[in-house]
Amino acid sequence: MNADISSSRSTRDWQAADAAHFLHPFTDFQSLARKGARIITRGENVYLWDSDGHRIFDAMSGLWCVNVGYGQQALIDAAARQMQQLPFYNAFFQTATPPAIQLAELLAEVTPPQFQHVFFSGSGSEGNDTVVRMVRRYWDLLGQPERQVIVSRKNAYHGSTMAGASLGGMAAMHAQGGLPIPGIVHIEQPHWYQVGREMTPEAFGVHAAGWLEEKLLELGPEKVAAFIGEPVQGAGGVIVPPDSYWPEIQRICDKYGVLLVSDEVICGFGRTGHWFGCERFGSRPDLMTFAKGVTSGYVPLGGVMVGERIAKVLIEQGGEFEHGYTYSGHPVACVVGVENIRLIQQLKLVERVRDETGPRLAKLYASLRDHPLVGHAETCGLMGAIQLVKDKSDGTLFPSELEVGMVCRGHCFGNGLIMRAVGDRMIVAPPLVTTAEQIDELGRLIAMCLDKTWADVKANGWV
Amino acid sequence: MNADISSSRSTRDWQAADAAHFLHPFTDFQSLARKGARIITRGENVYLWDSDGHRIFDAMSGLWCVNVGYGQQALIDAAARQMQQLPFYNAFFQTATPPAIQLAELLAEVTPPQFQHVFFSGSGSEGNDTVVRMVRRYWDLLGQPERQVIVSRKNAYHGSTMAGASLGGMAAMHAQGGLPIPGIVHIEQPHWYQVGREMTPEAFGVHAAGWLEEKLLELGPEKVAAFIGEPVQGAGGVIVPPDSYWPEIQRICDKYGVLLVSDEVICGFGRTGHWFGCERFGSRPDLMTFAKGVTSGYVPLGGVMVGERIAKVLIEQGGEFEHGYTYSGHPVACVVGVENIRLIQQLKLVERVRDETGPRLAKLYASLRDHPLVGHAETCGLMGAIQLVKDKSDGTLFPSELEVGMVCRGHCFGNGLIMRAVGDRMIVAPPLVTTAEQIDELGRLIAMCLDKTWADVKANGWV
Repeated sequence: MNADISSSRSTRDWQAADAAHFLHPFTDFQSLARKGARIITRGENVYLWDSDGHRIFDAMSGLWCVNVGYGQQALIDAAARQMQQLPFYNAFFQTATPPAIQLAELLAEVTPPQFQHVFFSGSGSEGNDTVVRMVRRYWDLLGQPERQVIVSRKNAYHGSTMAGASLGGMAAMHAQGGLPIPGIVHIEQPHWYQVGREMTPEAFGVHAAGWLEEKLLELGPEKVAAFIGEPVQGAGGVIVPPDSYWPEIQRICDKYGVLLVSDEVICGFGRTGHWFGCERFGSRPDLMTFAKGVTSGYVPLGGVMVGERIAKVLIEQGGEFEHGYTYSGHPVACVVGVENIRLIQQLKLVERVRDETGPRLAKLYASLRDHPLVGHAETCGLMGAIQLVKDKSDGTLFPSELEVGMVCRGHCFGNGLIMRAVGDRMIVAPPLVTTAEQIDELGRLIAMCLDKTWADVKANGWV
Repeated sequence: MNADISSSRSTRDWQAADAAHFLHPFTDFQSLARKGARIITRGENVYLWDSDGHRIFDAMSGLWCVNVGYGQQALIDAAARQMQQLPFYNAFFQTATPPAIQLAELLAEVTPPQFQHVFFSGSGSEGNDTVVRMVRRYWDLLGQPERQVIVSRKNAYHGSTMAGASLGGMAAMHAQGGLPIPGIVHIEQPHWYQVGREMTPEAFGVHAAGWLEEKLLELGPEKVAAFIGEPVQGAGGVIVPPDSYWPEIQRICDKYGVLLVSDEVICGFGRTGHWFGCERFGSRPDLMTFAKGVTSGYVPLGGVMVGERIAKVLIEQGGEFEHGYTYSGHPVACVVGVENIRLIQQLKLVERVRDETGPRLAKLYASLRDHPLVGHAETCGLMGAIQLVKDKSDGTLFPSELEVGMVCRGHCFGNGLIMRAVGDRMIVAPPLVTTAEQIDELGRLIAMCLDKTWADVKANGWV
């Protein structure tokens, strides 16, 4: 095989083959086939290149995952060595491989102290699926089998398996395939800018957490197994909760004995300027789902950190836990996880986000608030959201059918920047290796694309 | 990092770390911690080595997946090259990467002609989860939203997500975590030796398929979306259906317009001596789930082949399909898939299994039927099952609490052979690169372990 297969065919040829055979995730297949996919062929540091040679600043880290950036040789070498040594062995029948054990040890080291055990999966979806089975099993073993219900939030994202999509609160996903499955209920999200502006953020955070208590009392807390939430909602639009929210959620979970699950698939491994989002926001979860950043996406891997409260019961009283995946503890995935975490430690990426690049992104976003299109702009570590509005004086949104966010995304894509649109909320989550200078470069790109979008909005008479 | 991390610590040290941090899949954690896991450190061709230097014939191909054997340099080189070029990019936002497109093309080439499109996942579990959402979406789009129910079989295995485990028919899994989810029902499996011996296999196959028709008529066929089955049940114990079974299942699905889903996670990519199990048994599925053998397990990957009957509706009438995984089309996984399929083609492994090693394994298993412990022995391609019995004259089983299968597995493990026990059914699925000479070696190992088990059985007075 040619060392660079991408150059062996023309863009049009790749697009034709793509349209003929590849059903993309979360895609209108017909619409994509008409337009032709953009073919991404190469990555280095925070940049991508497409098949026409355009360079792109990947401000979404692939899909919230390439935290150490593209082209990290230490991860590549470790994967190749492990593939030569032992590309796969399972952990089902009383066997284990060194990389799985090493990663389990290292995860116990870098996660909060209540976590000493890990259950591996192949993705965040499979991790959240594991959570559903595990929390119900825990309560069964404690003689409270009626604790079955899991409370989640509207506009949450917890993956795309039947259970993951059910935990999630995405209406469009629930409209297809017979979702959600029973035993999962949703409360409103802590979206201050959208619904809370008559209060201070701090007051709104406590108020929004109170929706959990209301729901527990409505359901009967003795029927509730767990509450699950992303520290910062990612796919929902980088919705940063007020600082008062998570401590109040923790207080309510403690009061009613409900387990707390932190979905750290996006927030974990340094994204917030802390190792895990729960540490940034001050909760003490019983379970943490992880994926993406654990391997920086180089090889698929996910899992659940199991707090000692639960691990002790499963180990001492559980007998066989009838659950697992072929690739639970995949040695190549795990060795890449080990090298990735060591690289985050060596490069001090968590500290860099906390002390240098995170504050710089925050300053940049504060300055964007003056832009005529921007109603609100906020960050948390190396995540940022810009709410595009029709009238910034009162936060009036554009009619959704104008798809202003998609217009903006188009300008980004056409000008060498990947910034995602969630409705009219423009979001970024650049690699944690992004330097201060690259944050400034990102700022210039964003400002240019906002200006171009603003020009379109005016030209179209949308304001 | 040391090139061989496994030699850096003693077996006891690995075991202690394992017990302290790693919750293994499908495991009694406490029991394993007491005993200590066996640490698998190296693989080459069909052999593994443990941390004490013992060589083991891996007659389970890792976990039904390492079809091309360990140490295949072409796969390793392709993975390393792709990691350097582009270790990850997503396929969500109208983008694609060359390896995902190449693998989609190649899958369309090697699968039956009704398959021209693929939806990628990261595992077989995620693939079967996709099936549930996709078949319901298909019927919704055709204006038959009442077609929601999926019929599966008892003792089937379709993964371990909530939906996967629900599709599966494993009673022990259904006993934990609130399974199955609604809308999934199970008929009896086509297990001739267990329940059908008063008929010829051919008559029993038609009879067992008839249980599907009975269930459709009971439910109302207009409420049934699909029937799903493994061509040969794998984890259930390598239960080879009579040749008459699948054609009759196909006839019934056709008669009632019910979609047919072939779970090819184990049977796919040459295992049966055909590219896919449905080709061996003569069904024409509308969907095929795959995983494991697509990459020989070197990097996690799964997916669903979508037949044109369904693809056409989803593409032309579907709009956005609200489903997908971060790693749907992962470039490293896909490039390994491409190289793996090419290697299967180059080495003519499908033909080797069909014409040489499969028949040799069948002959070996025929000879095992004379052993005093063996009630029944059967194969399909490079899969085999040996039913251990107390009385071979009438097939009387041992009391399950004696765990004779586990005794046999212990002898295998102690004598350099991995053979799995499903109750008292001993199963193998060696790598497809296994040579004729290695089949003979496998035969000698199996015979020795059966003899040792028989000696124990007699010494314990169990017969």
